[in-house]
Amino acid sequence: MIPARGYAAPSATSPLSPFTFERRDPGPTDVVIEILYCGICHSDIHTVRNEWSSVMQTTYPCVPGHEIVGRVTKVGKDVKKFKEGDSVGVGCLVDSDRTCPNCQADEEQFCPHSVFTYNGPDKGNPGKPTYGGYANSIVVTEHFVLKISPKLDPAGAAPLLCAGITTYSPLRYWKVGKGMKVGVVGLGGLGHMGLKFAHAFGAHVVQFTTSPSKEAEAKRLGADEVVLSKDPDAMKKQMGTFDFILDTVSAEHDVQAEIGLLKRNGVLTLVGAPPKPMSILGFSLLFGRKTLAGSLIGGLKETQEMLDFCAEHGIVSDIEMTPIQKVNEAYERVLKSDVRYRFVIDMASLK
Amino acid sequence: MIPARGYAAPSATSPLSPFTFERRDPGPTDVVIEILYCGICHSDIHTVRNEWSSVMQTTYPCVPGHEIVGRVTKVGKDVKKFKEGDSVGVGCLVDSDRTCPNCQADEEQFCPHSVFTYNGPDKGNPGKPTYGGYANSIVVTEHFVLKISPKLDPAGAAPLLCAGITTYSPLRYWKVGKGMKVGVVGLGGLGHMGLKFAHAFGAHVVQFTTSPSKEAEAKRLGADEVVLSKDPDAMKKQMGTFDFILDTVSAEHDVQAEIGLLKRNGVLTLVGAPPKPMSILGFSLLFGRKTLAGSLIGGLKETQEMLDFCAEHGIVSDIEMTPIQKVNEAYERVLKSDVRYRFVIDMASLK
Repeated sequence: MIPARGYAAPSATSPLSPFTFERRDPGPTDVVIEILYCGICHSDIHTVRNEWSSVMQTTYPCVPGHEIVGRVTKVGKDVKKFKEGDSVGVGCLVDSDRTCPNCQADEEQFCPHSVFTYNGPDKGNPGKPTYGGYANSIVVTEHFVLKISPKLDPAGAAPLLCAGITTYSPLRYWKVGKGMKVGVVGLGGLGHMGLKFAHAFGAHVVQFTTSPSKEAEAKRLGADEVVLSKDPDAMKKQMGTFDFILDTVSAEHDVQAEIGLLKRNGVLTLVGAPPKPMSILGFSLLFGRKTLAGSLIGGLKETQEMLDFCAEHGIVSDIEMTPIQKVNEAYERVLKSDVRYRFVIDMASLK
Repeated sequence: MIPARGYAAPSATSPLSPFTFERRDPGPTDVVIEILYCGICHSDIHTVRNEWSSVMQTTYPCVPGHEIVGRVTKVGKDVKKFKEGDSVGVGCLVDSDRTCPNCQADEEQFCPHSVFTYNGPDKGNPGKPTYGGYANSIVVTEHFVLKISPKLDPAGAAPLLCAGITTYSPLRYWKVGKGMKVGVVGLGGLGHMGLKFAHAFGAHVVQFTTSPSKEAEAKRLGADEVVLSKDPDAMKKQMGTFDFILDTVSAEHDVQAEIGLLKRNGVLTLVGAPPKPMSILGFSLLFGRKTLAGSLIGGLKETQEMLDFCAEHGIVSDIEMTPIQKVNEAYERVLKSDVRYRFVIDMASLK
């Protein structure tokens, strides 16, 4: 086994603190990665605090982190795509059955046996959870390792592995592009990536936000228009005009109102999941033949495509770097939306 | 003006009774139609009883009926598509602005100025409502008149004008066909047409019903499987297996459970609108990238395409003929789902 160090939450109510553990010895298809950067995703906080217990229980200690960028230090004998020294990424998934129809369709995120990067069942260590990227190393089977172009800033690229693919995938699935009017709801870690992608795909992008202070920021990031969702007159002007809306808000909010913003055949896709059921009036979908959809990260093939697109178009996340010792403080700031737009842990601080 | 006779509801609480009124003299683009048959749609009952008052108030007296088949008796001088003696149909719409983007896209049902066949604003008689098909004649502008092939039984074709296009349109929009597993929820006027179309399009069709007595019927109509939605074991076996589900139920019911029946990228389309908001869990759309959509009748071009498809494939509605004098009795039976599967009024009874 390979000794590893990181930060873990010992329980749902404890702050994260230093933790030593072991990574498996690399098998023939495994890639050993020295982690350089790891983004802080809101999901990390939900899991660490066991806030999704209705869907899955958290096993402690919990080492979160699924926006990982690092360098290959060793490869198993059958590894073909990677060699020592390569710049690589790991996202939300580290395994799946590779044989089900979803895996065959390159949509491993929907595999019934997919393994999340943290708090998943660790096949190499039965009974133990997978440990994520708030650590100095990770061992991942080749198929779930992504190439990071040297054109990309590695710290800014880390959030692409979750926030990036989560917003890129639905925009591609629903063919967002030129001639389309697209709304992005929420301007956080996910929202600011959705805004950058929708803009890069050539759409006319309207950013919805509750914070007047974010107007200039949104325009800098690529918004053609910014609408304060608390301003009823501004909202009224936008009614019935959108081809597509990407809703990145996971707190409870008025999804019904967003359906009213869509025009005929318009699509509203949720990538954040409000914890309580939404109240949706059937009539509002019938009139205008509207669609309410969901989307969850993306498969490995599409994640690589997204990373390559970002390298080609100079897209990374706007980040604030933090040493791992300040991770609990960073969590508090995430909860107050006090970060533009993603914290990334500089793993050099762990040494 | 042209004297007309029919049946109307004088108020929300009165039974329908004989009513005399006037149709406009035909203008240059108008078609005068002698009505031979008119289907009884559940919407007729909702409107007559003002049960949709939250969306639109009913104006009395109300002559319902928007599943009309008849014969052309006169045409205006500029009418090109029709001549005296032609067999024709009229559905849910009799007018629209013809200039908006929805009309330009042949989706007149979403025109902001569309006029419903009954209880709409009658442009020819300002202040009065349009009167529907429970009558001996109707005058409709050419664009909203449909050709009925002599291959079709005219009485069985009447319900195609609403129940037919309402189920045909979403199946076409979502490209239902061979290799797809399709569910139809509800086996009434709409459901039995959805079942026939999904079968005709080559899909593997599963009929969901709450009535064990309908099993053999559903198979006769084209179902490959029949599932009792009240049987938890039977439902469990179907979880995560559907490409598409057509939900034709307008009473309150468990839409959330239907989302669980979809597989990856599956689409659930509502064509019935439950009066109260539905409770939908966002997570259930994210996992599997699922879609909840609505659909409303169809445009005139697609309605003609559907009628032609029916003529080619020998598809009509299963009907029970009723004289107009028994229309109130028929309403009570519709409310008890005691009809297989659509009442059609034989307008010869009006003479």
